[in-house]
Amino acid sequence: MSNIQALEKEFREYVKKIEDFNEALSVLAWDSRIGAPKKGVQQRSEIIGTLSTEVFQLSTSNQMSNFIEKLTEKDVYKQLSIITQKTVDECKKKYERNVKIPKEEYKQYVMLQAESESIWEEAKDQADFDMFRPYLEKLLEFKKKFIHYWGYNEHPYNTLLDDYEPGIFVDTIDHVFSELRDGLIPLVKGVSESPHQPQTDFIYQPFSKEQQKHLNIDILNEMGYDFSKGRLDETVHPFAIGINPNDVRITTKYKEDDFKLALFGTIHEGGHALYEQNISEELIGTPLCDGTSMGIHESQSLFWEKFIGKHYSFWERNYQVLKKHSNGQFDDVSLEQFYFAINEAKPSLIRIESDELTYCLHIILRYELEKSLIEGSLDVKDLPEAWNEKMKEYLGVVPNHNGEGVLQDVHWSFGAFGYFPSYALGYIYAAQIKEAIVRDLPQFDQYISQGDYTLIHEWLKKHIHQHGAMKKPAEIIKDITGNGINAKPLLSYLNEKYRRLYQF
Amino acid sequence: MSNIQALEKEFREYVKKIEDFNEALSVLAWDSRIGAPKKGVQQRSEIIGTLSTEVFQLSTSNQMSNFIEKLTEKDVYKQLSIITQKTVDECKKKYERNVKIPKEEYKQYVMLQAESESIWEEAKDQADFDMFRPYLEKLLEFKKKFIHYWGYNEHPYNTLLDDYEPGIFVDTIDHVFSELRDGLIPLVKGVSESPHQPQTDFIYQPFSKEQQKHLNIDILNEMGYDFSKGRLDETVHPFAIGINPNDVRITTKYKEDDFKLALFGTIHEGGHALYEQNISEELIGTPLCDGTSMGIHESQSLFWEKFIGKHYSFWERNYQVLKKHSNGQFDDVSLEQFYFAINEAKPSLIRIESDELTYCLHIILRYELEKSLIEGSLDVKDLPEAWNEKMKEYLGVVPNHNGEGVLQDVHWSFGAFGYFPSYALGYIYAAQIKEAIVRDLPQFDQYISQGDYTLIHEWLKKHIHQHGAMKKPAEIIKDITGNGINAKPLLSYLNEKYRRLYQF
Repeated sequence: MSNIQALEKEFREYVKKIEDFNEALSVLAWDSRIGAPKKGVQQRSEIIGTLSTEVFQLSTSNQMSNFIEKLTEKDVYKQLSIITQKTVDECKKKYERNVKIPKEEYKQYVMLQAESESIWEEAKDQADFDMFRPYLEKLLEFKKKFIHYWGYNEHPYNTLLDDYEPGIFVDTIDHVFSELRDGLIPLVKGVSESPHQPQTDFIYQPFSKEQQKHLNIDILNEMGYDFSKGRLDETVHPFAIGINPNDVRITTKYKEDDFKLALFGTIHEGGHALYEQNISEELIGTPLCDGTSMGIHESQSLFWEKFIGKHYSFWERNYQVLKKHSNGQFDDVSLEQFYFAINEAKPSLIRIESDELTYCLHIILRYELEKSLIEGSLDVKDLPEAWNEKMKEYLGVVPNHNGEGVLQDVHWSFGAFGYFPSYALGYIYAAQIKEAIVRDLPQFDQYISQGDYTLIHEWLKKHIHQHGAMKKPAEIIKDITGNGINAKPLLSYLNEKYRRLYQF
Repeated sequence: MSNIQALEKEFREYVKKIEDFNEALSVLAWDSRIGAPKKGVQQRSEIIGTLSTEVFQLSTSNQMSNFIEKLTEKDVYKQLSIITQKTVDECKKKYERNVKIPKEEYKQYVMLQAESESIWEEAKDQADFDMFRPYLEKLLEFKKKFIHYWGYNEHPYNTLLDDYEPGIFVDTIDHVFSELRDGLIPLVKGVSESPHQPQTDFIYQPFSKEQQKHLNIDILNEMGYDFSKGRLDETVHPFAIGINPNDVRITTKYKEDDFKLALFGTIHEGGHALYEQNISEELIGTPLCDGTSMGIHESQSLFWEKFIGKHYSFWERNYQVLKKHSNGQFDDVSLEQFYFAINEAKPSLIRIESDELTYCLHIILRYELEKSLIEGSLDVKDLPEAWNEKMKEYLGVVPNHNGEGVLQDVHWSFGAFGYFPSYALGYIYAAQIKEAIVRDLPQFDQYISQGDYTLIHEWLKKHIHQHGAMKKPAEIIKDITGNGINAKPLLSYLNEKYRRLYQF
């Protein structure tokens, strides 16, 4: 073995250790959210703090610094495997980012995250913003200090975006989001004012949790979610978590008078999970064994939830499956009526229950608010009022209490500022991906109505899934479309679909 | 702060880090057993290996060696708090034990443990000993090498016993077990030959998992198990796991035509859990925050399962609760008939389903077999035959297949040789504890029939629970009885109870 090979091996083992700790942290995160004992919160936060500190220390150690220095030497770097090269790149980026934060502050931050998330759950239940407010203020204070340590170009929010959507900046988002908003306003207006509205009463009928669970499992199996590499649990806020490609877990939330919530939530999380289950096993033990960005991750969940799960062809096949698991509520409902009902579009309060037409307006609202919080042009204490005002302005509806308003999302409770834009970017990417798949697989609709996802899975695996974080978002979009980020495919999809449904 | 105080603080922080890693490992162990994805086994073993290696390195580092050297200096030691003193003692013992095992071998062993346990589950399901055999052979090989590294007095098995029941040796066990066996043989014979046998058909009636779950939760609540510091799940082999006193989880196994299996299993694990939930919080972050030995731990589970759960007074109160949750199967059954039925004693195949009269014979069999495996007088390949022969000799029954024979217990699948004797020691301790409680609380039976466990909890907490590993087994038994380990209380309890029930 040459010196370089020996160094490469040593580096990969070092990185594997970091990733093992990260996988343990993922299990702890999953555990905390699926029903770990309440009184264990404090001590569990300390465990998470200790493990995170270890990861932080290993990622910012002199040893890591030495690895980076030696392995990025031109003559050395070019002899490394492509996986090691990209691993070095990731480690270097993380090193440079992390080394600027004092260790003790980082540990306190991680402990605060765990505690805040648990407080948020209670605050949300009780619609009590003041209970959550001091935690949010502390989290924001940490984030501002971190931005100061990191430095930034042009806008402090840009450095946060880099965590979720590397290479995308405030000016791009401002541009794409405004194009989207300009396109959405007349559409939402047309839909609201149309005299042709769906009948939906048959949706909101009793549908037991047990029956819904069987339905969701059937649908996950049809989607190709591999239960031998995952499991389905129940939580307040649904999520997917990839511990490694062989262990990707999802959760859902059941509402017994609205089966849509769990079903489309499950398809959404299932889309995330399919991505992670299909990352190449070669990447295990490296930071590349993950989705390449939040936006691309979200494109996968949204592709499955909206472009498949809300597709007419999907229900040509699965309406029977739904009927089998339910209690006769759809007996007198035609497929067309049902399809219109599940695609009902109207302004509403809760992001995760909103429809594909109004969804991006929920995101734009959050993006603007957190940008203001970070800029300092908005105080946490004024957040509920600002939230409610924007809801009225964009969607014409106002929450009755903060539980269905500013407290509805988990994200801020663990300090994830800069995350929300990814959801709308995910929408935009998903529409671009859908367009590219239909170009390559013109019989797309037919495959879906037959429940045969073989070629679709192959396409997604080849172009997106297998690469993990080896390919960056812009590279993926460029490869499959020949172009950059573009809101037009999403806008034409929505225009075509909703003008036909609502007949205007 | 003096130099000694500073050193003490530094040491306690170092130990806290080790314990945080151990708590993470406990969550991973729990996760692996309650239904983690099958295909994730290999990678999860590696995570567990990495964390265990970290614990091992921290426990055997030069830094630990320095701490021990400095803190055990006479003038220093006496200035430490009593908790720190005992923590130093534990760390010293562990250091001296662990430093003799090469790191790489230990890591391989831990990975093998995780993998073997998963293979064992499959082998047990398929009653296929050959599937499990190579793993058992490898585990045994490791154990023999470890014994060689550690050294031992008189018998190689003694050094294994030290892991579970410090201060107890093969000669004591041989002595106490033979007294127990001599006492049990005529009793079992009398019971088997008695013409007065219980009617039991009403026990084995359909009793849905969902109904049993409600019953078990009611009983756990009555016992004082704190659900805000724990949770109940379902597994193939029931267990209790204490992550810390604020997070102590139990599992059970339901059989829909025998409610006894889950109910008494739950009470058993609940007894373990009460111990761990009541350890003083002052001990969190030290190796003392644990049961003091497997035997004392087992005395707590057996005390609740046998001396309370199988007690007539318990059912004076809870027979109604059972009836409420079941389907009328007990409508024509008197309390006396029911009490006789749940205390039925007869030789059987499965240890965890066996009764309190024959239970210790199952243990003596296992003890003798594993002692032979360690001595080298028995080969793994001959184990199933040896098992079956001893079953015939001691209990007069022979398994139809290895799934209900040699493969029935989880213990050997993670290399826990030396563990089994603790179960019978636990029985012996439990009877000694029961005698001491009745001496101090003569209205014991009345408290139980009233469902008022306040004074019993106080007694157990005061004499046993709160101390964690601060007091050693012999010290506890000495304090509460004024004497040493003694099989007589158990033998007189069993004689009195079973001669009356079976009328001989």
